[in-house]
Amino acid sequence: MARIPVAVLGATGAVGQRFVQLLSDHPWFEVAAVAASERSAGRSYAEACHWGLSGAPPARVAAMEVAALEPTLDARLVFSALPAPVARSVEPLFAGAGYVVCSNASAFRTAPDVPLLIPEVNAPHLDMLSCQREARGWSGSLVTSPNCTVTAVAMALKPLHDAFGAQKVFAASMQAISGAGYPGVASLDIIDNVVPYIGGEEEKVQHETRILLGDVVGGTRREAEVEVSAHCNRVPVVDGHTVCLSVQFERQPAVFEALEVLRAFRGPSPVPNLPSAPRQPVHVRPEPDRPQPRRDRDTESGRVVTVGRVRECPLLDLRLVSVVHNTLRGAAGGAILNAELLVATGVLER
Amino acid sequence: MARIPVAVLGATGAVGQRFVQLLSDHPWFEVAAVAASERSAGRSYAEACHWGLSGAPPARVAAMEVAALEPTLDARLVFSALPAPVARSVEPLFAGAGYVVCSNASAFRTAPDVPLLIPEVNAPHLDMLSCQREARGWSGSLVTSPNCTVTAVAMALKPLHDAFGAQKVFAASMQAISGAGYPGVASLDIIDNVVPYIGGEEEKVQHETRILLGDVVGGTRREAEVEVSAHCNRVPVVDGHTVCLSVQFERQPAVFEALEVLRAFRGPSPVPNLPSAPRQPVHVRPEPDRPQPRRDRDTESGRVVTVGRVRECPLLDLRLVSVVHNTLRGAAGGAILNAELLVATGVLER
Amino acid sequence: MARIPVAVLGATGAVGQRFVQLLSDHPWFEVAAVAASERSAGRSYAEACHWGLSGAPPARVAAMEVAALEPTLDARLVFSALPAPVARSVEPLFAGAGYVVCSNASAFRTAPDVPLLIPEVNAPHLDMLSCQREARGWSGSLVTSPNCTVTAVAMALKPLHDAFGAQKVFAASMQAISGAGYPGVASLDIIDNVVPYIGGEEEKVQHETRILLGDVVGGTRREAEVEVSAHCNRVPVVDGHTVCLSVQFERQPAVFEALEVLRAFRGPSPVPNLPSAPRQPVHVRPEPDRPQPRRDRDTESGRVVTVGRVRECPLLDLRLVSVVHNTLRGAAGGAILNAELLVATGVLER
Amino acid sequence: MARIPVAVLGATGAVGQRFVQLLSDHPWFEVAAVAASERSAGRSYAEACHWGLSGAPPARVAAMEVAALEPTLDARLVFSALPAPVARSVEPLFAGAGYVVCSNASAFRTAPDVPLLIPEVNAPHLDMLSCQREARGWSGSLVTSPNCTVTAVAMALKPLHDAFGAQKVFAASMQAISGAGYPGVASLDIIDNVVPYIGGEEEKVQHETRILLGDVVGGTRREAEVEVSAHCNRVPVVDGHTVCLSVQFERQPAVFEALEVLRAFRGPSPVPNLPSAPRQPVHVRPEPDRPQPRRDRDTESGRVVTVGRVRECPLLDLRLVSVVHNTLRGAAGGAILNAELLVATGVLER
Repeated sequence: MARIPVAVLGATGAVGQRFVQLLSDHPWFEVAAVAASERSAGRSYAEACHWGLSGAPPARVAAMEVAALEPTLDARLVFSALPAPVARSVEPLFAGAGYVVCSNASAFRTAPDVPLLIPEVNAPHLDMLSCQREARGWSGSLVTSPNCTVTAVAMALKPLHDAFGAQKVFAASMQAISGAGYPGVASLDIIDNVVPYIGGEEEKVQHETRILLGDVVGGTRREAEVEVSAHCNRVPVVDGHTVCLSVQFERQPAVFEALEVLRAFRGPSPVPNLPSAPRQPVHVRPEPDRPQPRRDRDTESGRVVTVGRVRECPLLDLRLVSVVHNTLRGAAGGAILNAELLVATGVLER
Repeated sequence: MARIPVAVLGATGAVGQRFVQLLSDHPWFEVAAVAASERSAGRSYAEACHWGLSGAPPARVAAMEVAALEPTLDARLVFSALPAPVARSVEPLFAGAGYVVCSNASAFRTAPDVPLLIPEVNAPHLDMLSCQREARGWSGSLVTSPNCTVTAVAMALKPLHDAFGAQKVFAASMQAISGAGYPGVASLDIIDNVVPYIGGEEEKVQHETRILLGDVVGGTRREAEVEVSAHCNRVPVVDGHTVCLSVQFERQPAVFEALEVLRAFRGPSPVPNLPSAPRQPVHVRPEPDRPQPRRDRDTESGRVVTVGRVRECPLLDLRLVSVVHNTLRGAAGGAILNAELLVATGVLER
Repeated sequence: MARIPVAVLGATGAVGQRFVQLLSDHPWFEVAAVAASERSAGRSYAEACHWGLSGAPPARVAAMEVAALEPTLDARLVFSALPAPVARSVEPLFAGAGYVVCSNASAFRTAPDVPLLIPEVNAPHLDMLSCQREARGWSGSLVTSPNCTVTAVAMALKPLHDAFGAQKVFAASMQAISGAGYPGVASLDIIDNVVPYIGGEEEKVQHETRILLGDVVGGTRREAEVEVSAHCNRVPVVDGHTVCLSVQFERQPAVFEALEVLRAFRGPSPVPNLPSAPRQPVHVRPEPDRPQPRRDRDTESGRVVTVGRVRECPLLDLRLVSVVHNTLRGAAGGAILNAELLVATGVLER
Repeated sequence: MARIPVAVLGATGAVGQRFVQLLSDHPWFEVAAVAASERSAGRSYAEACHWGLSGAPPARVAAMEVAALEPTLDARLVFSALPAPVARSVEPLFAGAGYVVCSNASAFRTAPDVPLLIPEVNAPHLDMLSCQREARGWSGSLVTSPNCTVTAVAMALKPLHDAFGAQKVFAASMQAISGAGYPGVASLDIIDNVVPYIGGEEEKVQHETRILLGDVVGGTRREAEVEVSAHCNRVPVVDGHTVCLSVQFERQPAVFEALEVLRAFRGPSPVPNLPSAPRQPVHVRPEPDRPQPRRDRDTESGRVVTVGRVRECPLLDLRLVSVVHNTLRGAAGGAILNAELLVATGVLER
């Protein structure tokens, strides 16, 4: 089967580089174009990007000329790693011109007609897309993936929510520096230190969790009735966000029931069969001191959430810890899985 | 005034070294003896200890011979930095033999007749000491200082509790490696990593907070009715514990009221006049991204708790962040302040 | 082809775990037994080892019972990750009993009848093995792999030495914590710090480099006439040793000549065709700020040395920087490549 | 005695903040003005600077209005923490207008009529100042302090050079992130990593060492005949540069002779009596694993160089390790000591 040509917007930044890396040997997709801001456009990708991941950029993409952010790229499927203010104006241009845009930007995540998607968690939210086209007058589509900390929260909560009805969530995060892009966090701010603040992050965790655990009725989104209190911190970790959770449910589960439900979670069809889908979206570690970001972030090539320390909570029902690889699963990786779901469900052909 | 001779038990370990360092130019106290386990006893302090703090051990102490852990030391006031299992048998020996023991060990913190003391928070708990002597038949006394994470929690909560009545507390900690002693945490476990577990720590935070915020009636301790849910994590920070708190009160304060109360806090007389007492026990930082352990741990020579990000909580009433220097205030420093209070209130003379 | 059963001695330690991990999907070898000290023997591998690498130990090995360190294991090929003092007595037992031992321990590296081997650098040193059997009266063999810092030095120097004749070498290393095993370096010793000392390391770098660049004549080893001055440092890096080198040659090469020689290096036949052999043993990075341990240690699955900053030296002829993954190439990985060479050259059948 | 009013140019940057901090309780100097680029001028210092050191900026300075970089400041003595390109045009303006400028910028360090000064090392270089005024037609003066890595090299070498005549030096540095200013090094570049390159640094180490160890004859500078080969690396350390040195001398000293000379070093009169001068400029640590940046950078309030591991070198004569606090001694602190020397020798009155 010929691979589907795709483009990456914002390809020179930290998340853009992850897209290029992950797509370099993807079974369905092939990078046909890379686009970035005027500063980079016209130069070769190798010159324009300060490659920060392991090794060097894939040779084929390194040689490409970086295109401008205009909807004239030779690819119907487009990944966006644009900064939010740029995404706000550029992504609608592409969706309007018929492109299917899988965005990691926060610009449209909470728009009422734009799916905010984690395939294992809320694949049915794609039902919003026909309303979207109608409301916006777009010939293409726009689908977003959530904030990377939210991914650690929502994937751990989804199976528990379905079984026991989550009502209240306390979430304290310890987030990796790669979540802030490049150059991002100054080393003088974070070595031998913790920064107990990430601008806008707590609001995102609180709101996006409600959206992801919610449902779509008649093409319209209904947020879940979950109250979340988030405390977001930056810690000196390269990759992998860790979140401590306390959760209250409609029906309090025993610890063993929670573990069963977490281990059994697979996500709705056809998600488990997508090429980037992990064998098991939520891994449960039995050791008392796991999950840990450095030791668990790469499980199943970084596509999963790893959970552990499920135990009772003196205030709510259960406490647990969740770790996610913030760029392999949370940012670029999540958007690629979204794109695979769009292909598998025929959205790309519409 | 001649300085009071003191001894340090467990002087060669990490906390013991902090005692030696902090006591080296103390206005009231002078190290007259250092004692440690059999492995070290009989050697010079310089030889017996692998000094891990800045510079070198004070010359006067470096030359001392390390004594055995027997109550024959030439000092009536004794600081204990012993491991809990050793403290359990050694500290009663000293208290029974007439020594006043200021301990940083956890062995007797929750014993019903042993004060668990932070002078600014619960100086009146010293009223328990006469019951203690009677019950135990000791001619000396034993006073303990709390777990270092609890210090960050209790000092931040005390003024709020007095004013508004704390009822429920979420506490998610990010703790420094120096809290685990030496060699303590292996570097392979913590560089580029978070360990979401510290054995026994969550129970200590939950229980000791209740004790510290409680009161003493008729010589008997009554714990405060505060439910605490603790999530304790180790992070790659050398010194300084950071705790994210969500708190519910009997009467919900506005943010500005909480700030006023925190800033006005001074602790009961005679605590503010003790030589190691900070000018202001709780500092409040106005910046959105403070407190931070590396930048705030040394405020007032590390004797304070620094608080910031006081804001509303979607689940409880208020969220805030508290940072404490875990060894300068939390361990050795706290015990020295306790000893100063014992001197100032005449306990040492009894 | 049925895979060759192998055993790992010292399987529960840090290097032993790497052996188990790397052998878990090896095309020629299959772990048939794991052995360790009395403390571990008799327990399952999962119980006996505190797994510190990513994820969990391979399920098949996790279930094995750890055997004692006695030459009754059901495998003719044995990997040793024993500490040097244990290796000193145990490895000869195995070699004497007919096992072919590929050791990563330092115990026999400088013994005159034991090959110290990096296949790409000095495969012909295997000629020593017949002398070894004769001299020792062993029916098996013992081959060692070098110190992991030496690997970064010797692999970078070998092509230059062959072409231009290395005579003098300054080597200043910045070594990863994983090189010290587990628990190894205390976090209090290395976070926000450098330790400019690693016991015995400078002597190893100086001596083993001479051995590796030397040759074997008539079954006897002749060290190269290379004077090395080593400065060894521990830095807060998880994996990957970095070495700054200044080198003087018999014939001073231009920078471009050195680069050509480094890029062209492949190692002697049959090494390039071994399953673990990298496509290119020495990678050369053109960027001014490379190689870097975090970004280059995983090149070709960590099997290579990455070199950069080749430039003139005001004192000697050339300066350069070399990075190696100290456990994937330097310790476990190097010994596995040695074993592959032993199989390919028929030593295992003798 | 009334304190001398001083100004700080570039006061909002990382080194500028150190100037403000160190001058806040200086016995001779008092900050009378802070100046910075247009972006900051006109705002209060508190607003204009993102304070990155411990605690908060001194209240008196925090309230000052930041002035423009024009020679109309109310202070005759001026400290410059300007970036090199700005310093190149601004510093001559001030010196020409009669100010005495103590600069930490690299712009004029190698100019033949500008002293590059470490008081303990080359105080007599101030003899150049009369030539400077004549050649430049300045009514003021300009004195520079060296690169912070050079400080670790030159202070350790000076006593050895005087006694034994240094001829060749191999220097491999491991430099702290604070040496790069703020925001400086991105955390993604340095956590769990080493960057073996710092632009222009090796040339500075090589050249400035020759200048500092040289002398001034008839008002003209003569560089020392010392060949230096530098390898400069950035490591994940907050403060404190570590340098590994190998040195060859005209007359090879025994290790004990070198130690004697290092320990006896005090610097020329009147340097030891300046208020910021350390009791002993070079400390020698006897432990095999010292000096270390975190444990030795604060010795004598960070004003010294700490040396250790003095041992023989297989290639040259001696190896040793030197650590300096790069901002307390190397940058701001060094320039303040220079200013004290200018006051003590009457330059400020001329």
